[in-house]
Amino acid sequence: MPKLKNDTLIRALLRQPTPYTPVWIMRQAGRYLPEYNATRARAGSFLALAKNPDLATEVTLQPLARFQLDAAILFSDILTIPDAMGLGLTFTEGEGPRLERPLREERDIRKLAAPDPQERLGYVLDTVRQVRSALSDSVPLIGFCGSPFTLACYMVEGSGSADFRTVKTMLYSRPDLLHHLLEVNCRAATAYLNAQIEAGAQVVMIFDTWGGTLGAAEYREFSLSYMRRVLQGLKREHHGERVPSILFTKGGGGWLEAQAASGCDAVGVDWTVDLAAARERVGQRVCLQGNLDPAVLPAGKQAVRAGVAAVLAAYGKGAGHVFNLGHGVSQFTPPENVAALVEAVHELSPAYH
Amino acid sequence: MPKLKNDTLIRALLRQPTPYTPVWIMRQAGRYLPEYNATRARAGSFLALAKNPDLATEVTLQPLARFQLDAAILFSDILTIPDAMGLGLTFTEGEGPRLERPLREERDIRKLAAPDPQERLGYVLDTVRQVRSALSDSVPLIGFCGSPFTLACYMVEGSGSADFRTVKTMLYSRPDLLHHLLEVNCRAATAYLNAQIEAGAQVVMIFDTWGGTLGAAEYREFSLSYMRRVLQGLKREHHGERVPSILFTKGGGGWLEAQAASGCDAVGVDWTVDLAAARERVGQRVCLQGNLDPAVLPAGKQAVRAGVAAVLAAYGKGAGHVFNLGHGVSQFTPPENVAALVEAVHELSPAYH
Repeated sequence: MPKLKNDTLIRALLRQPTPYTPVWIMRQAGRYLPEYNATRARAGSFLALAKNPDLATEVTLQPLARFQLDAAILFSDILTIPDAMGLGLTFTEGEGPRLERPLREERDIRKLAAPDPQERLGYVLDTVRQVRSALSDSVPLIGFCGSPFTLACYMVEGSGSADFRTVKTMLYSRPDLLHHLLEVNCRAATAYLNAQIEAGAQVVMIFDTWGGTLGAAEYREFSLSYMRRVLQGLKREHHGERVPSILFTKGGGGWLEAQAASGCDAVGVDWTVDLAAARERVGQRVCLQGNLDPAVLPAGKQAVRAGVAAVLAAYGKGAGHVFNLGHGVSQFTPPENVAALVEAVHELSPAYH
Repeated sequence: MPKLKNDTLIRALLRQPTPYTPVWIMRQAGRYLPEYNATRARAGSFLALAKNPDLATEVTLQPLARFQLDAAILFSDILTIPDAMGLGLTFTEGEGPRLERPLREERDIRKLAAPDPQERLGYVLDTVRQVRSALSDSVPLIGFCGSPFTLACYMVEGSGSADFRTVKTMLYSRPDLLHHLLEVNCRAATAYLNAQIEAGAQVVMIFDTWGGTLGAAEYREFSLSYMRRVLQGLKREHHGERVPSILFTKGGGGWLEAQAASGCDAVGVDWTVDLAAARERVGQRVCLQGNLDPAVLPAGKQAVRAGVAAVLAAYGKGAGHVFNLGHGVSQFTPPENVAALVEAVHELSPAYH
């Protein structure tokens, strides 16, 4: 296997020394880019775009053509798994994802099976292969999945929710049933990430978008424990190279110590977390990824540069930091401010290494 | 002044010994109660209800007729201040509050003035007096306001928001302007709470609904520092009785130490916080209020009892805990489950005192 030309992200995730802090941006291939919107328009819909390996490869690469990013992330969606389970994924403009057949009956949950990624998610694996080929080992490719609990939220609610009333009622009144669902999701996510690794993903990330809506004890029991099992089931190496893993629970800053002990290589933190305090709490156990408030980006280049400087200073000197936003980049972000962010990280971070 | 017949809440807030853990419920006079919905229908709208002291008194007392609660909380809304400033408050069914004239221009922000509560918010003070009279010193009455930052969120956005993009853009690009707005809100909130205290509120609470959406440094600068100034400006005693204060930042569990040093008597915590860890972090400085997940309530009486037991056990033995939910009670809550909650707190908590 040829070596990566830029392996800064991999090294930082493994807490090895790097000359500067690597940077990528959650949702970096997204609606803030006019070229993304053009490709999406050609595809006809978000889902058609995600399911077309040629076009998905195209949008995965778009932000790398504009910005000196240190990684590509697969263009896809966390709900490909419930879609492959037959729950009927749709995206309505401005409304977010919806599953047409949410799981409300015990018999539907009991007959759920983890999909074989080769059979049902081949379009994702094809995209991974095509992106890898197009990248020519310039920067690593990050694969990802949703956490078992976050998938369960959508599978039971049928969409996002302000209070996750339905899935939480199941959690508190039928924990056995929710555990069964999480078990299936856990097997599905593990097989899916391993298939992405075999297809060429060089880093994997678990997005736990809704784990932060749980109580502390419920987070450990219903979200973190299943992410730990996914991590335990992952191939840690592929073709002799370590495949680092990142765990990110939005709103999970209160539970960093437990996340750091989950078996992941890196913990993502949102912008509400003080990175200096977070580093003290996790010690030498993991790399930290984050955590600029995405709301800084529309405020102008000067604000972006000040924000980058503050995040770098909060983490401080030494290895083990991957620069990112604390959540996905918003569609209202001027692309030139993302350029300013990437430039500022590359310009200001060497002083910390 | 006659003494309160049940002063358990006041004592707990001041960290004095009590025979059991007092309990009240955020939004206890709300849509989950059929009698509330009947009164609201008579009033015609939420706002008409809040502005009619007779009807607002009626709904304030309704939950106390059903449940053995240890406090009443004024029925009102945090947006009475922006309404008194002339920003045009409306509530649309199922949509939440809206301000018709949000502040988007510097000149509008510069000419903003803190309203005189006697002149512009007399209906609230009348309600406080009427509720106090109706309560006949049975349990204390809690008054409240929104935090300066939370008010600013609504005043700039015009409504709630998924990302508070407009107010955050102001924060990052024109911090001077946001500070000016927060200064006015701070004076308004201080005068408003002091007027409520003079009218008879025996406890005051500051609701910081959106402070938890800020980064750690921004929370201290734009939300907590103004709540501290409100607290510093409050009458601490009225007619020789201490008036305890409660500060609650939803999603603010990462910053408990700073909240505990703000000058409040009690810190409210949401359900994502482990109460045992929280108690260790704040030490002897403040009482803690919370923190059952409101989503437990629809799950049935058994789940409610188990949830109450877990919260009481997490806080552990000794003074300084006020039982509450971690957020307002949802409209989808069966009232009999609220009864089960209050009973469980009164039945299970004496063992901890």
